Amino acid sequence: MNAAPVSRRARPAKVPLSRDLVIETGLRILDTDGSTALTMRRVAKELDTGAASLYVYVANRDDLLTGMLDHVLSQVPVPTEGDWRARVTRLVETAIEALGRHDGLALVAFGRYPTTEHALTLIEELVTLLREGGLDPSTATWAADLIYLHIAAEAAENSGAPDSAHRADISRRSAEPPIHRFPIPLDRQTHRSDGDARARWALRALLNGIVATPVDAR
Amino acid sequence: MNAAPVSRRARPAKVPLSRDLVIETGLRILDTDGSTALTMRRVAKELDTGAASLYVYVANRDDLLTGMLDHVLSQVPVPTEGDWRARVTRLVETAIEALGRHDGLALVAFGRYPTTEHALTLIEELVTLLREGGLDPSTATWAADLIYLHIAAEAAENSGAPDSAHRADISRRSAEPPIHRFPIPLDRQTHRSDGDARARWALRALLNGIVATPVDAR
Repeated sequence: MNAAPVSRRARPAKVPLSRDLVIETGLRILDTDGSTALTMRRVAKELDTGAASLYVYVANRDDLLTGMLDHVLSQVPVPTEGDWRARVTRLVETAIEALGRHDGLALVAFGRYPTTEHALTLIEELVTLLREGGLDPSTATWAADLIYLHIAAEAAENSGAPDSAHRADISRRSAEPPIHRFPIPLDRQTHRSDGDARARWALRALLNGIVATPVDAR
Repeated sequence: MNAAPVSRRARPAKVPLSRDLVIETGLRILDTDGSTALTMRRVAKELDTGAASLYVYVANRDDLLTGMLDHVLSQVPVPTEGDWRARVTRLVETAIEALGRHDGLALVAFGRYPTTEHALTLIEELVTLLREGGLDPSTATWAADLIYLHIAAEAAENSGAPDSAHRADISRRSAEPPIHRFPIPLDRQTHRSDGDARARWALRALLNGIVATPVDAR
C-alpha cells in the first residue's frame, strides 16, 4: 500500500456512476467475497464514493440484488436452433447455469413476482415457445411461471457449495448405519456427480408433465 | 416496563435451556419480527441468557435455521387416506403450507442436501409413496429430490409478501402500456387469487411428468 499523498489533480478521472456500474460492482463483490460482504457501504467503497451517492442509482440493497438478478438474466441468449422443446430446454439450462454462478443470487427470485425487464422477457420467451408447442394460453402462462420457479430453485440449489460443517455432517451421516428405510445417497454432490443427468431428467419430467396437463381440462 | 429492582431469589426459576427451546425461540422471533431480527444475540436475550450459552445447543445461526426448518418439517403429518397420488399431493401441500408460514425459512432448504432427521423422513416418505405408485427406485429417488425442491420453491414463493416498494413497482408496471408481446398478469398476488388452483395444477403437472418419465428409459 502506498501511503504517500497524491494530489487530487494527479488522480485519474473517476468513471461516472450509473445504475449499471453499481450493479456490476455488486456482482463483482458477490463473486469475490460472497453474499455477506455485499453491503451498500462496500459497493460505495469499491466505487470510491459515499454510500449516499449510491442511493441515486439503487433504492436499497434489495433493489441492488434485483438489479443484479436482472443483469444476469439479460445475458442469457435466446436459443434459435431446434424445435420448441429443444429451445425451452436450452433456455432453461442456460438460465440455471448463469444464475447458479452467483452465490445465492437465485434466492432473490423467490417471493417477488418479476417486474424487471429481462425477467419478464425470459418468462415471455417461455410462453412463446410453449405456445409454439401447442399449449393453450392459460397452460402456457402457468407453465412459464412454474418453469421460472424451477430455474430459480435449481440455480439456488447449485450455487451453494456445502460449507465445512455441512460436509462433516454429510460424512458423519453417511458413515452411520442406515436408520431409514430407503438409503438415499446423502452426499448430494456425489449424488450429483451424475448431477447433469439428474437435472436433465428433472426438466424432461417437468416438460412432459406440463404438456400432459392442460389447465382447462381439470 | 417495571424498572424496580427485583431480588434474584424472587424470580421464577428459568426454563432449562435445550436445543428444542432455542429452536422454538428462533421460530417465535422469526414469526414476530422477521428474518433480520433473528440473531443469536436476540435469541439469547429472549432466553435471558448470554449468547455464549447458546453455542452449547446450536453451532451458529445457520445451524439454528437448519434446526428450525427440521422442526417445522417434523410437524407435517403423514397422510394415511387415499391412493399414493392423493397422499403425495396432501403431503406436499401440507409441507408447503407449513414452511410457507415462516418468512424465508424455506430458503434454508436450498443448496444444503438435507441431513436432518425430519427432512430425510419426508424425502423417504415421498420415495415410499412413489414406489407404491409403481416407480422404479432410480426414478422414485430423483423424483423425491425434485419434489423436495418444489416444496422449498413454492414455500419460498409464498412466504415473501411483496414490500411496499415492490407493490408500487407492480402497480407502475401494470399501468404501463404493454411493452411485451404477452401480457402476463404482473401482480402475482392477483394472479394468485387463483393461487390455490395454480399450485394444484403445478403439482399435478409435476406428478404427471414424473410418472411419464422413467429415469432408465432415456
